[in-house]
Formats: sequence, structure tokens, C-alpha cells
Amino acid sequence: MKSTQAPLPFPGRQSDSHKGDFGRVVLIGGSRGMAGSISLSSMAALHTGSGLVTAVVPDRCLETVAGFHPGIMTLPLPATPAGEFAQTTGGVPDMIESVVASNATVAKADAIGCGPGMGTGAGSVRIVRWLLEQTDRCRVFDADAINIIAQHRFLDRPPLPRRQASVVLTPHPGELARLTGVSPSDRPGQIEAAETLVRRHAFTIVLKGGPTEVLGPVDPSEEAGTCQRHTNTTGNPGMATAGSGDVLTGMMTSLLGQGLGPWDAARLAVYVHGLAGDLAAKAHSQPAMTCVELLGRIGDAIATTED
Amino acid sequence: MKSTQAPLPFPGRQSDSHKGDFGRVVLIGGSRGMAGSISLSSMAALHTGSGLVTAVVPDRCLETVAGFHPGIMTLPLPATPAGEFAQTTGGVPDMIESVVASNATVAKADAIGCGPGMGTGAGSVRIVRWLLEQTDRCRVFDADAINIIAQHRFLDRPPLPRRQASVVLTPHPGELARLTGVSPSDRPGQIEAAETLVRRHAFTIVLKGGPTEVLGPVDPSEEAGTCQRHTNTTGNPGMATAGSGDVLTGMMTSLLGQGLGPWDAARLAVYVHGLAGDLAAKAHSQPAMTCVELLGRIGDAIATTED
Amino acid sequence: MKSTQAPLPFPGRQSDSHKGDFGRVVLIGGSRGMAGSISLSSMAALHTGSGLVTAVVPDRCLETVAGFHPGIMTLPLPATPAGEFAQTTGGVPDMIESVVASNATVAKADAIGCGPGMGTGAGSVRIVRWLLEQTDRCRVFDADAINIIAQHRFLDRPPLPRRQASVVLTPHPGELARLTGVSPSDRPGQIEAAETLVRRHAFTIVLKGGPTEVLGPVDPSEEAGTCQRHTNTTGNPGMATAGSGDVLTGMMTSLLGQGLGPWDAARLAVYVHGLAGDLAAKAHSQPAMTCVELLGRIGDAIATTED
Amino acid sequence: MKSTQAPLPFPGRQSDSHKGDFGRVVLIGGSRGMAGSISLSSMAALHTGSGLVTAVVPDRCLETVAGFHPGIMTLPLPATPAGEFAQTTGGVPDMIESVVASNATVAKADAIGCGPGMGTGAGSVRIVRWLLEQTDRCRVFDADAINIIAQHRFLDRPPLPRRQASVVLTPHPGELARLTGVSPSDRPGQIEAAETLVRRHAFTIVLKGGPTEVLGPVDPSEEAGTCQRHTNTTGNPGMATAGSGDVLTGMMTSLLGQGLGPWDAARLAVYVHGLAGDLAAKAHSQPAMTCVELLGRIGDAIATTED
Repeated sequence: MKSTQAPLPFPGRQSDSHKGDFGRVVLIGGSRGMAGSISLSSMAALHTGSGLVTAVVPDRCLETVAGFHPGIMTLPLPATPAGEFAQTTGGVPDMIESVVASNATVAKADAIGCGPGMGTGAGSVRIVRWLLEQTDRCRVFDADAINIIAQHRFLDRPPLPRRQASVVLTPHPGELARLTGVSPSDRPGQIEAAETLVRRHAFTIVLKGGPTEVLGPVDPSEEAGTCQRHTNTTGNPGMATAGSGDVLTGMMTSLLGQGLGPWDAARLAVYVHGLAGDLAAKAHSQPAMTCVELLGRIGDAIATTED
Repeated sequence: MKSTQAPLPFPGRQSDSHKGDFGRVVLIGGSRGMAGSISLSSMAALHTGSGLVTAVVPDRCLETVAGFHPGIMTLPLPATPAGEFAQTTGGVPDMIESVVASNATVAKADAIGCGPGMGTGAGSVRIVRWLLEQTDRCRVFDADAINIIAQHRFLDRPPLPRRQASVVLTPHPGELARLTGVSPSDRPGQIEAAETLVRRHAFTIVLKGGPTEVLGPVDPSEEAGTCQRHTNTTGNPGMATAGSGDVLTGMMTSLLGQGLGPWDAARLAVYVHGLAGDLAAKAHSQPAMTCVELLGRIGDAIATTED
Repeated sequence: MKSTQAPLPFPGRQSDSHKGDFGRVVLIGGSRGMAGSISLSSMAALHTGSGLVTAVVPDRCLETVAGFHPGIMTLPLPATPAGEFAQTTGGVPDMIESVVASNATVAKADAIGCGPGMGTGAGSVRIVRWLLEQTDRCRVFDADAINIIAQHRFLDRPPLPRRQASVVLTPHPGELARLTGVSPSDRPGQIEAAETLVRRHAFTIVLKGGPTEVLGPVDPSEEAGTCQRHTNTTGNPGMATAGSGDVLTGMMTSLLGQGLGPWDAARLAVYVHGLAGDLAAKAHSQPAMTCVELLGRIGDAIATTED
Repeated sequence: MKSTQAPLPFPGRQSDSHKGDFGRVVLIGGSRGMAGSISLSSMAALHTGSGLVTAVVPDRCLETVAGFHPGIMTLPLPATPAGEFAQTTGGVPDMIESVVASNATVAKADAIGCGPGMGTGAGSVRIVRWLLEQTDRCRVFDADAINIIAQHRFLDRPPLPRRQASVVLTPHPGELARLTGVSPSDRPGQIEAAETLVRRHAFTIVLKGGPTEVLGPVDPSEEAGTCQRHTNTTGNPGMATAGSGDVLTGMMTSLLGQGLGPWDAARLAVYVHGLAGDLAAKAHSQPAMTCVELLGRIGDAIATTED
């Protein structure tokens, strides 16, 4: 394992804290057949220190998600027969956004992560579009949420706000290719394309890979557009396993919900995530480690980071 | 970890015991979307030594609860379509109390805990009201059961018995605020308000926080009203995590079911709960520990207490 | 922990074995609300060495049972709306026995355990009665199966065979009281009553308690009736926890299925079960150990026995 | 434990890998009552290093499979009321093949394993037949898939391709007997019969037992038919437990999906599988180890192999 330094210390905890103090986070995603993904994000948020975590999922897969960890709360949204988010509810079109928007749990969330396992159906599109409009909220877009942004050209389209300084995107190279048109095989080109997105939209972007790059605005308020880059020092090829990215999404959302800014949350999340992966690989071997072993090492990784 | 002394030794076990000897306890709560909470209470009761534990839950979420541990028994009550306790059954209003009241498992329970994850709907209100009338039974009210007591002013309202010496309330500061009107930010004021409740109603009150305070009558039979206070010495901010309170409710109910009085059960439960949390934080870090890790350390904490 | 000697060595395994060689066992029981019990018996049978284990359960609770361990196979029988075994199927009365009887899995079973969590409804009564007639098969009757035998006086009633040398009964004192009328508080009287049953019916009886007594015929074929007694040397009061007996039922059925006679299977099962409980209590404390921790120590207990 | 040498080193991992690089594998099987089997294969594939694993299962048992591990993706196919693969969908006969064939996940799979827990009903027959025609794909046939091939004489019947160099069969002696007519008690005769199948069809055959034999063509392209044999050196009788073979199927499919040829994948999978079993037996005893403990030791076994 590489001996590296955390980019910043893990946030401390006050002795008279209440569970609300460590952030109420919401994770939106999942579908029948991919219910494990949003469950992983939710469990990762709990293990990263969030006090209250709610998984917002299609009604059809609520029980599967709820069964993975008794500390996860779940909230059902209308589902299609196949178990994805439905566009309409009770026959009324375009309702799903109002269901999400009017929900007290979502309204009180300190940070929202969206995307894992949700598919790119009409209901998911509505939710992503609505989330893009919530500019006063910290948000993480991952996986199918990024694919939806790419497919529907949501970054180009008014009336959506162009600059989104409270947004983190966490694409893997294939997802960034869909967003920018630059091939996954052209790593320098992909980094450059991500920088362009950062300058234009004030996003923080986590471009996964070996190593993972974090890109974000130097000064989010500056309209001209700035970009800084941080290269992560942890992680290993054993993490190229199903659900690894879902865990990262949950960790990132958790740190945003605990009050870290996007730049700090992104750098710290990828560092701890990679370190947890290194510890899991050491204990179980790179091929044998799965998302569950990764999840199980977040605590050890945080302990290292706190020292 | 702080080196502290248990307020009393953990109850011993006779060598010719049967599972009924360690208490039949019932935990009432849960709802679809919050089924994990009452599951945690039930598992905590098992791990604190109860011989037989039954979770009484809305029918809709029985399978989720039952899946968490093969030692939990479950009992379904009529549920609303959303998965909360229903007020009526088969169209007949006000029946839920009679279903609970006539149930043999509930009737034989040595202690009953109520509240985690149950919501504050009409069915839950009926159950809480019915439970308040069962003055010959040891009862723990937590979470939404406390919110219901506050909302419906059940403490002020005849014909409910005013003095309840066999009741433990386990509010966090927000819940106590709803019950007394004193803001969570005014800790001395909250302690004073809790003392007033103790003197008036002969409750034992566990006011959560850092540190947790236990307040109870010196002499429950004395109508004039007395109050003593015990400050817990264990616990850490890592326990400000979803489900931590549900675990405490189960532990408290378990100790009442094993024959401890409210004052002893409350002091010992918060002590062991906090110690389990300290051991979990040491093993997993404060941010990474969840209710599951807390549950897993109850045994180690009890072993320390027995020495 | 007491240092004791196993009553006989654990059966060895041939190096060219196939999973069928270690016994196909069937466990019949469970109901909605008590699905964990038969799951525990089934998992215990797997951990005691059975090659193939099928849980025969009411249709309504199949998914709950199946979710506990991927090595358990499950077989649904018709269920009542409440989730117990139904007496009839498709409106035709008295069919449940023929469903069980005609099933290939049941027909091929080397041993059958019955009772945990099944309730005493009409469907369960039919199954127990049918099982009592299968005199060429090794069978274990536990929990509600014993209660049914007591309620319906199946031991007195022709045309059921009176002598049942391939049957093990595993009552706790309350169940034996129902069967014999002798109070649980009269331990010597209960042992005497159990001896009478052994002499009359050629059963092997495991009378649970501290310590557990195994009683069985010296010579099962002798019509006159003989009885020998073995006092178990392992176990502790921490095992007075929900599901502990279900684990024993599964272990006993497993050893019968591996070819041990009732007398040997009973003595070895209670010994290993108690030793597993002692190891679990040492690791987790007596109050905190549950059926899951007990299950997890069967392997360590067997390893000790093999030495 | 025997000290042995791995037949080949475990495939290494590049540092800039993505989860797709380690193979997208599909496991087809399961049925209500036997949902654990295909879950085990899927989890074993994840633990052997596959990046993306999809379990294709009858709709009725999807939730049970999905609940075992959050990293498994699941895909439902039409099911019979009893929970097996249905032959028809929506009343249209013979559709199941087209559902499978048109599915993007199946189309993109680098390797497909088929058989565990699927039963031998009409829907399963259709799937096996369709899979036999996919000659450009690496496939593993196990358990009921082999029984179906035997029952329907698919090896003899045009228009199915006779030579299948990308197929691995993993029969236990009973399954090989159904395929060849040679009794399980005649081990030399079974090995000879397997050799004949290899020469004729260019299969790789894993004949389970103590020890397991791997047989495969020396030169798959040579029409004349050649056969080489490898005797596995790991494993123990404790592995004669339910689900052990399902784990092997998943491991084999995983290694094929990572690019190993059938001969190498088969030899390495049986070696690591047996070593994992040896480690599990050492930790838990031979009788007490189950498929879950076996699964949990794959990582340790791989780590040994990598050295």
C-alpha cells in the first residue's frame, strides 16, 4: 500500500452532537434489478458519518433496499411496472417532480446524491432535471444521472441555470465521453474537456480512473471561469468492481452534507474511498474484494485519516 | 475511552433458566420506509438478554423486519396503504386497540417498548393512548410515541392516569422540546422541565445528549413528587447516527423485562449502550460506526460490566 | 467453560464423498411471524454437516426463509391467509398430507425434523399425524409438533403405531408438561414421566434444562420397554434465548440424516450444541449471545469434538 | 492442508482498469425454492474478480437473489406460477429464447454460466438449447443445464453444432451418468466417457469428485479429437455441501470472462475453489463449513495463488 497523506483532515465531531448535526442526506436512485446500487450509496453515507440517510427509490424496490441495513430510511416514489421511476403518478403526467419537491425529507436534506442504478427512463429524466434547478442545494450527480444530462443536453439548455457551484459530477471515462464527446482512450483530452466544463459551469468534477482526478473552480463565484486539479494518490485495480462507484457517491454526498465544500468533499471522499479499497485489497486480494468489503473498510480508512 | 464504573452490576443468570425467565418483551413500532428502527430495537433486546422478543409491526413491513434476525418473532397489525398502523380494521373504526389488547403475546409481555419508526398517524395514536392506560405494565416510550404524547397532550388529559411509575420516556432534546416547550438549546431548562415531569407523573426520563441524564422519582409512590438525577459517563459523538436511539429503546425494554425497576434499567441501559458505542467507535472510528456496529458491541460492553 | 468429554466422536468424512452422502434432510415448520425458527433449524443442519437441506414451509413465508442462507432449499406448502400450514388445498379438505407424502424431496429425506415455529393449526396437525405414521424414517419432533401430539393425544390413539424407535422428541419442561401432565417445577417427576414414555413408545427423549437429560431405550426392539439416561455436560444459561432450541432440532436431524442412531445423535447433538453455546457465551457474554452467535460457533465446537 | 502448486498464476490487473475490463458475466438459473444457488454463482463471480455480474432469473425470485449481495445485478425473465423459467411470455409460445437473445446485458456478456437451481422445465430447456447455439461465446453448463442436455439428447441432435470448444461442462458423477450412461460408482469408466465427450465435442469437462478431474482438447480445432487430463490437488470432503458446485460455476464463468481459455479457466477455478474449501474447513471444520464460508475464503485462496 502506498504511504500517502490525506488532502485534508476528516471533519471532527462535537461531544454534544445530535444525529441531525452530521447531515441529513438523500440518495435518489435504484430500480428493480439494480436496487443494490443505491443501497450501497446509502450505506456508504452512513459509514462516512451522516446522521440520517434516506434512500429515495422506485416503490417496487423499496423492500430490497430497506433489507440491506436497518439504519437506512427509505422513501418510495411511483414506479413503472418494470420498477423504474415513473414519469406520472395516478395518470397525471409530469407529477414526479412535484412529489419529490413537496417531500419534507427531501426538502430538509443537506445534500442530495442522484444516479446510481436509476436507469435513464422518463421518470429519472424528470428527477434529474428538477435537481439541476435546485441551485441552493449541494448535489452529486453520478452514473445514469450523468448519462441523462448528456442525452438531454441539460447543460446547454435554458432555463436550467448554467453555473452550478454546488454540484459535483463523478463520471467514469465512459460517462464523461457521453457528456463531452471525448473518447475514454484519450485521457489527456478527457481531462481537458472536464476542465472546460468546470470553467463554464463551476462544477466540481471527479474523473475516475487510475489515478482519479478532481477538478474544480478556484473561485466558484468568478464568472470568467477558473479550474484547479488534484490527483488522487490512493486506490487500486481491485476497485474496478460493481458498486465501487456507488460507494463513492454516497461518501461524497455524506461529506457535502457534513458541511464540506465541493472541492474539499471531493478530494477527501476519493482519498478515503481509495484508501478503503487499498485496505480491502490487502485483506481480501484485489480480485476477491467486492463493494461489500470496500464498505467494510471505510472505518479503518477514516481512522487513518484522523491521525 | 473513559474508564468508568457501571452504576449497577448486570443481572446474573441462574443455571436452570428457561428462555421465559429472561423476559418476554414486545416492541411496537415501524412503518414502511422505517422498518429498520423497530428491527434494531428488537435485536438490541435479544442482545441484552431477553429470552423472547416480538416486534409488533404494521402488516406491510413484517417481512422486512423478520429478515433482519431469525430470532425475532413478528406480529402484524392492520396497516394503511402507506404502511403505517391503521386506525381501523376491516372498516370498523377504533379497533386497533382491541387487536393489541386481545393479543396473547402482548398480554404476556413483561415489558413493552413503543415508538421507533411508527409515525404519528391515527393508528399509532390509538396504540400509544392504549399503552398509557396499561399502568400495571413496564413500558418505554420513545421517538414518535413521545411526539404523539406531546401532540395530543396525553399527559394532561383525563381519563388517562396521571402518575405512571412504570413508564420510561427516552426523549432526545427535540422530542423533549415538543413535550415541554423548552428549547433544545437550553440544556439546563430542559433538565428542569424533565424534573417537573418526573415529580408530576413519576416517570423515569432519559434525556439524551452529551452526556445523557437519567431522572426519576426517589419514591414513586409519594404523591408529593420527588426527583433524583444520574449523569451517564459513557458514549461519544459517533453515536449520533441513525438507529442509535432505537437500540437504546430495545436495551431499556429488555432490562425492564428482566425485572429491573425503571431507575436501575434506565441507568444500566444508558451505561451499557454508551460503552458499546465507545467500543464500536474504537474499532470502526466515530464517523464510520453505525447502529449495526453498535449492536455488535453490546456483548463486549456487558462482559465489561459483569466483571 | 467446563472441560468435558464428548459422548462419542463426530462422524468422519470419506475423501470421495458427494453431498448426498452426508444426508438429505427435511425440516418442516415455520409460519408468518415465526419464519426465523425453521430457518435456524435448516442453517444448523447445514452447519452440522448435512449435504442437502430443504425447509418445507407455508408458501407465505418462503421468501423470508430463503433469504437467510443461500444454501437452504425451500419447498412451499399451501398456507392459510395468516401464513400457517393450511389444512386444505384448492378447497379440497385433508389434502396437505398427500402433498407432503407425494413430494420427491420429502420422500428421499434421510431424516425429517418437524415443529419449530409451525403453530398448532389444522394444517400442522395433519402434517404431524402423517409424520407419526412414517415409522421407517428418522424423525425429530420439537416445539409445536410436541404441543400437537399432546393436544390431540396422538400417543394414545390407534391406528398410530405405538412404538416409534426412530423418533426423537426434544421437549423443554413446559412442552413435556403438556405431554405428561407433570409440572415443569417437578424435575425428578418430569424425568420419571419421560422414562415412562421411553419404555412405552421406544422414543428417544431430550428433556431440555440445566442440565439436559437424554433418555432412550436400551434395546428399542424389546417390547417390555427399557430406558437408559445420559446427562449432558455442556451448555449455560445464556442459551435460554429465542431460537436456541430450533438450532438443536436442526443439529439432531442432521446427525440422524448422517446415519447415527437416535441415542447417539441425541447425545452428540446436545453435547455439541451446548459446547457451541459455551463458546458463544465466552465470546459475546451470556446475555448478549443470540441464536445467530450460537449457530456461528457450531464449527468450533465440532472441531473440539473431532480432536 | 496439502501444500500444492497452482496450475497457473491468477490473472493480474492493470492499474488503469475499469470494471468492464474484468469481464461482464451473466449467470442464468435459479427458481423459487432454489434461488440461493444462482445467487451463490453470482457472488462467486464477483469474488473471483468479475467487474459486472448479472443474474438472469425467473421474475418470481428476483428479490430473493437481489437481497444476497448489493453488487449483483438481476434481470427477470418470465416465470411460471411455481417460479421456474416459463416457456412462453404473454401467451406467445417459444418466446423465452428471443427475450434472452435480444437482451443487451446478455448480448454484451463475455461469458455465460447456466444451470444452478433452474430446474428442467420447458423454459429452462429453451434457454439451454439457445445457449448451445451461441458458439462464439464462452459458456459454462452446470447442474440442471447438464440434466437438460442429457434428457433431450442435445449433444446428438442437429441442427445444434457438434463441436463446442468454448464450452465447459461441470458435472458431478450423477450428472455425468445421466449424460453418458456410465454409473457414478465406475470412476475409471466415467473418466473414459468424459474423454470420449471431449474428443467428440471439444468440450472442457470438469468431473467433480475426490479428486476432481479436468479434461479438455489438446487442440480444440483438430476435428480428429484429442484429450488431455489434469487432476486437481485441492479440496476436501467438507465441500460436499449444498451450493459448493454453484460457487465453482460462478468462479469458472468469471475466469472465462476475464479472458482465460476453457482449459486454463477450468484448472485454475477448481484449484482456487478447492483451496478456498481447504481454508474454510481449517477455520470452521469440514462438517460445519457451508457454501457461505467457502465463498468467504476465495480471497485468501487467490492471495495464496498470486504469490
